[in-house]
Amino acid sequence: QWMMLDWKPKRPDMLIDPFGIGRIVQDGLVFRQNFSIRSYEIGADRTASIETLMNHLQETALNHVKTAGLLGDGFGATPEMSKRNLIWVVTRMQILVDRYPTWGDVVQVDTWAGASGKNGMRRDWLVSDAKTGETLTRASSVWVMMNKVTRRLSKIPEEVRGEIEPYFLPSDPVVNEDSRKLQKIDDKTADYIRKGLTPRWNDLDVNQHVNNVKYIGWILESAPPPILESHELSAITLEYRRECGRDSMLQSLTAVSGTGFGNLGTPGEVECQHLLRLEDGAEIVRGGVSGGPKMPTILV
Amino acid sequence: QWMMLDWKPKRPDMLIDPFGIGRIVQDGLVFRQNFSIRSYEIGADRTASIETLMNHLQETALNHVKTAGLLGDGFGATPEMSKRNLIWVVTRMQILVDRYPTWGDVVQVDTWAGASGKNGMRRDWLVSDAKTGETLTRASSVWVMMNKVTRRLSKIPEEVRGEIEPYFLPSDPVVNEDSRKLQKIDDKTADYIRKGLTPRWNDLDVNQHVNNVKYIGWILESAPPPILESHELSAITLEYRRECGRDSMLQSLTAVSGTGFGNLGTPGEVECQHLLRLEDGAEIVRGGVSGGPKMPTILV
Repeated sequence: QWMMLDWKPKRPDMLIDPFGIGRIVQDGLVFRQNFSIRSYEIGADRTASIETLMNHLQETALNHVKTAGLLGDGFGATPEMSKRNLIWVVTRMQILVDRYPTWGDVVQVDTWAGASGKNGMRRDWLVSDAKTGETLTRASSVWVMMNKVTRRLSKIPEEVRGEIEPYFLPSDPVVNEDSRKLQKIDDKTADYIRKGLTPRWNDLDVNQHVNNVKYIGWILESAPPPILESHELSAITLEYRRECGRDSMLQSLTAVSGTGFGNLGTPGEVECQHLLRLEDGAEIVRGGVSGGPKMPTILV
Repeated sequence: QWMMLDWKPKRPDMLIDPFGIGRIVQDGLVFRQNFSIRSYEIGADRTASIETLMNHLQETALNHVKTAGLLGDGFGATPEMSKRNLIWVVTRMQILVDRYPTWGDVVQVDTWAGASGKNGMRRDWLVSDAKTGETLTRASSVWVMMNKVTRRLSKIPEEVRGEIEPYFLPSDPVVNEDSRKLQKIDDKTADYIRKGLTPRWNDLDVNQHVNNVKYIGWILESAPPPILESHELSAITLEYRRECGRDSMLQSLTAVSGTGFGNLGTPGEVECQHLLRLEDGAEIVRGGVSGGPKMPTILV
């Protein structure tokens, strides 16, 4: 019953978003916003960092909810959610990056939501080059509701379902769900362990908790710099297990596999398993990251 | 001979910047760009962080150089600078914040450059609320040239002067220069010391050095959270003394004075002196920060 989505903008002037806030397209079910990549959003290799991409995903998701008139007093919570002290928490995020944009590039981010099982919501994103239409990134995520007082997960109340379901777009996930569970790594199986990581004051979001985008930075903290320099992240899966507050002390573990292992100077496909955990061993985030070789960065 | 600058936009449609890249105004000597504050640019108290403001200052400075057609192959360097391996380094930054914007606010950033002594450049910024015209932030900075191979400071070569001087706007600094030198604090005079700070992978800029905006985050790392929670930074002076690379291990020192001292729970005017130094004692940045009480953040 549902047509293929037509991602090519019909008129070039649709690329222009004079107020920079984005707008609803596709019969009200897809939200679209353009971002001009800024100088402070790129890293040592002059391309946008993975955090930048994830920030743009977060911003469009929130603006989608806002533009749909569904923003309660919370950060992405609807009015019926706010009444019940419910907030969204992400449990899984899968990102496939084909190409990273650079400073001055304009990216177009499309996002839409759908059902995920009985009590979850899926949110997908398609990021493309606003000039050429080339697909840059696809991402898919699963969200559930948490009571922000008890910190326990909650079913979706009927009143909330009534608010959000009219905005659901029945479609297949933009990233095929990887059914493999991420491995749990530990002190024995990890190749690199970085201890003593703590949130900085500005890592906290409006809920005084570490924003989910920050975790990827910590995960990469335990990856050896030669890998970060010679490889480009192309696929990331994150499983969020537990929230992390301002006083948490974290450890970041990395296990490397794939052809790049043992010969870090020579680029090849690399696959890494990651774990962020509290010092008492409680799991915060499991990660699976793979990447391919990139043009070597010239160190200046 | 120079008129007062007229900061009020003459027509409301001048506020619209369809491509989000900004443009030259004021007879070609002032660059103007609007920024819509994004969800990931605000902190735990829902207002834009000081890093966000400084990022916007950096972005407009670079876009000014780019729009003027003066961008060489470097990051803000002109073609004649690139030929000579010269880069700009900031030596002093003064920021006065009247009000911090929140998510969805649109800020207008105006920036212009001028001479500073014989071998320096001053760059000023005026940040205002794009809707109301209210001044939000004023900032003034001093830059000198460094040879990126020898890492030594350089005079401004005549050829570079010829490129940049036509863009200088003779005007008084937007922030009155504070002639007091910042005090040097040490282990004895510091009230708080935070050790073991290291750059994260994504703190590095395209020169593989820590971007100057990152230092403010480290400086605040040694300020006690009760002060950060109850106060709003209103004036910041930073003196950059030495650059910092990816393998540096830093210490952040804070000395607190002012009425808030000794009674951190009760907000009052607070003044702090800061020092970022390497473990061997070499000074990286001296900072002077003052702030007033803010509405207490409700911890959720």
